[in-house]
Amino acid sequence: MATTQRIKQILTAGQPGENLTIQGWVRTKRASKKFTFIEVNDGSSMNGLQVIASEDIPDYAAQMERIGTGASVEISGQLAESPGKGQRVELQAETIEVFGESDGETYPLQKKRHSFEFLRSIGHLRSRTNTLGAVFRVRDACAKAIHEFFSDRDFLWMHTPILTASDCEGAGEMFTVTRFNLDSIPTDAAGKADYSQDFFGKPAYLTVSGQLEAEIMAMAFSNVYTFGPTFRAENSNTARHLAEFWMVEPEMAFCNLEGNMDLAEAFLKHVFTRVLETCADDMAFFNKRIDDTVLATANNIINSDFERITYTEAIRLLTKAIDSGDKTFEYPVSWGIDLQSEHERYLAEELFKKPVIVTDYPAEIKAFYMRLNDDGKTVAAMDVLAPRIGEIIGGAQREERLDVLERRIEAASLPKEDYWWYLDLRRYGTVPHAGFGLGFERLVQFMTGMANIRDVIPFPRTPDNLDF
Amino acid sequence: MATTQRIKQILTAGQPGENLTIQGWVRTKRASKKFTFIEVNDGSSMNGLQVIASEDIPDYAAQMERIGTGASVEISGQLAESPGKGQRVELQAETIEVFGESDGETYPLQKKRHSFEFLRSIGHLRSRTNTLGAVFRVRDACAKAIHEFFSDRDFLWMHTPILTASDCEGAGEMFTVTRFNLDSIPTDAAGKADYSQDFFGKPAYLTVSGQLEAEIMAMAFSNVYTFGPTFRAENSNTARHLAEFWMVEPEMAFCNLEGNMDLAEAFLKHVFTRVLETCADDMAFFNKRIDDTVLATANNIINSDFERITYTEAIRLLTKAIDSGDKTFEYPVSWGIDLQSEHERYLAEELFKKPVIVTDYPAEIKAFYMRLNDDGKTVAAMDVLAPRIGEIIGGAQREERLDVLERRIEAASLPKEDYWWYLDLRRYGTVPHAGFGLGFERLVQFMTGMANIRDVIPFPRTPDNLDF
Repeated sequence: MATTQRIKQILTAGQPGENLTIQGWVRTKRASKKFTFIEVNDGSSMNGLQVIASEDIPDYAAQMERIGTGASVEISGQLAESPGKGQRVELQAETIEVFGESDGETYPLQKKRHSFEFLRSIGHLRSRTNTLGAVFRVRDACAKAIHEFFSDRDFLWMHTPILTASDCEGAGEMFTVTRFNLDSIPTDAAGKADYSQDFFGKPAYLTVSGQLEAEIMAMAFSNVYTFGPTFRAENSNTARHLAEFWMVEPEMAFCNLEGNMDLAEAFLKHVFTRVLETCADDMAFFNKRIDDTVLATANNIINSDFERITYTEAIRLLTKAIDSGDKTFEYPVSWGIDLQSEHERYLAEELFKKPVIVTDYPAEIKAFYMRLNDDGKTVAAMDVLAPRIGEIIGGAQREERLDVLERRIEAASLPKEDYWWYLDLRRYGTVPHAGFGLGFERLVQFMTGMANIRDVIPFPRTPDNLDF
Repeated sequence: MATTQRIKQILTAGQPGENLTIQGWVRTKRASKKFTFIEVNDGSSMNGLQVIASEDIPDYAAQMERIGTGASVEISGQLAESPGKGQRVELQAETIEVFGESDGETYPLQKKRHSFEFLRSIGHLRSRTNTLGAVFRVRDACAKAIHEFFSDRDFLWMHTPILTASDCEGAGEMFTVTRFNLDSIPTDAAGKADYSQDFFGKPAYLTVSGQLEAEIMAMAFSNVYTFGPTFRAENSNTARHLAEFWMVEPEMAFCNLEGNMDLAEAFLKHVFTRVLETCADDMAFFNKRIDDTVLATANNIINSDFERITYTEAIRLLTKAIDSGDKTFEYPVSWGIDLQSEHERYLAEELFKKPVIVTDYPAEIKAFYMRLNDDGKTVAAMDVLAPRIGEIIGGAQREERLDVLERRIEAASLPKEDYWWYLDLRRYGTVPHAGFGLGFERLVQFMTGMANIRDVIPFPRTPDNLDF
């Protein structure tokens, strides 16, 4: 096949007079008397390349007949300066090959604007639209920026297991995995499912977090991170929940809460900076068409020193806002509550007008593995709250003291024997260590301003939805 | 905490006279009269840094008492030229802080050599050994090289779904995912499991491949790849099978079998080249301690032009070897058979002595989505066979013609309605396209020479094994 150039490259660096070949899909076709204007997109950028086909093209009439919106083509010709506005160059076609036609009568992507809900029902075609195309380029750019960030700091990327026997946080919202035929489950003497006959010989689940295994690896390699799928069998039909989503979880040995905060702040700044650099057109599109605060938010993240306050201080500030009549909240505020989204947004959006890291939460509302502070009632947890979205990162310094951890596991009524290896990490060469977790789709949603999380993952899985 | 340096950096660039701090775990401790020699490893490299602690250290006797194999320490001091062999510099300790002790009586990692089988039973500690440490550094370097390869070529990284309703290849060896309590599955009128009450409202499985979804994305972005976990519920207790493993699957629009072969060859050369560059010490270790052909194999991959032969030619060569008495095989050879590992290894190891790409296999033994050749009996499939390991990559040009694909789905007795969206890709703007799949753990196994695949993934999942 002919050597081709990607359209993104042509749009930025193509020179008039250059002969080249493009391959892609027709977005629009507009015929005038002796010419046809064809916009071709190959997914490399938001903008397509405008192609001018004249009657001189071999088999002109028949070829134009075959070309409709969605058709796939290979077009060779010469670049010329474009008289049109908004484009530097256009391609004067010399030969056109149509690989695959697309019946305008039945092609589900018509020229009109489609709702995101409708587009979800054609998940196999929606990436060919401007918005979803931009979303998935930004998603890719985010993913690359994440690897780049950690790689620059010598973190090892670790693949923690998807299949697990344990419930990391004891939250219980896990999917069960089995090789049994659900129509006829083998049972034991007590009439219960006989797991000894199942693939793993015991109950198996889909992981909710790779953190505990990441801690294992941090105890050998110092700095590691996971970046992979995690699962929640939560029956939440909201614009912010997915049953399957990707999570990023760095874990650092010899690190305390302050180092954790420093890393989280540097991490967000890096990812936003890189995406603005590599996907400038796509980000401009989101700001124009989806949410006109997207660029301001990104720049706020990049340029602000994140505010750092304790939970106790946060409660004081919220109470003060209520008492002074500045603000009313739906949920009452007092020391010990879990902060609600409205509280988090008030702190980040209204009070500080920039990201806020809240630390040292009450032990009762946080997981057993977070390090108990000297006051005996708070733990070295941190949540990064961002304007417009609320919590974007959650993390903690981990409890590295064997005796304290054992007491916390008991207090949480968790089965201590399941954590034998986790406790061993505190028994043999334990170190202060810390880490955080970031929901990747929440980040992409935040970055792009997309209202529904189902539109920032190629094939969303939610209750009753398992298509494609 | 003190600013520290990673040991890898110190070993390569540290200058005598420099003052610095290290953090890591004690690998060995050797006491002489007035000094103690401590080797500290922080996971950044195979080699640790030798530390000399003299009696001048504050609280010397007590500190040396607390330091045993596996203890975690922070040590500050001054670098000095090392008189010892095999090391350029050593650290003369000024202060030592012990974070966590490690009881020499019970610490499972003793100085003696442990079997890999035993080490699997302590998966939470085995990464602290030389071999597993090297494996996971090489694994990380492979993963980075893979992203780098595709990123350099403007491929988008796509996250294809783990949870799926469909069986990509109709092979049937899938895990079922459910929210049902297996002790009491709701049943319908016919006494069968009532999936309408399950989380997704229908049967759900763990994916065996992201290929079909990657094809969707290639039809919008031209070049994409997946790199994520996949699953096989195969009851194979071998050194080459995992129930959960990572797979790399590029998919290219406007690409034929030749382009696919070119990409596969460039891909392997890139990954091997980068790992030799970034993990030279680890690779030298594998060559010395695990398999003395590892470096020769890597260089063979990097420096050979891969042989490219058709399946028909491969059968002719195998038959010729048998007929001439050069070779005997356990499995008989004739046109139409699936090549066995012994056949693949003969071609790559003995006959060509380099990687061989075999193409155009009989349609009957390959998947329905591979493009039917003009002869009507072979398909545009390719397998990359490597010396010592056999098949390392499998791929194909995909069937892009709607009518041919429909016939192949029918011939394979697959439920056509399940493939409606896959067929739509051929209905609207279809293009020639191709891709391949590579089992990531097989690659790491190949690279390192590790005999058992369970030793190249942090937490292996196999029948009856779901630990950590």
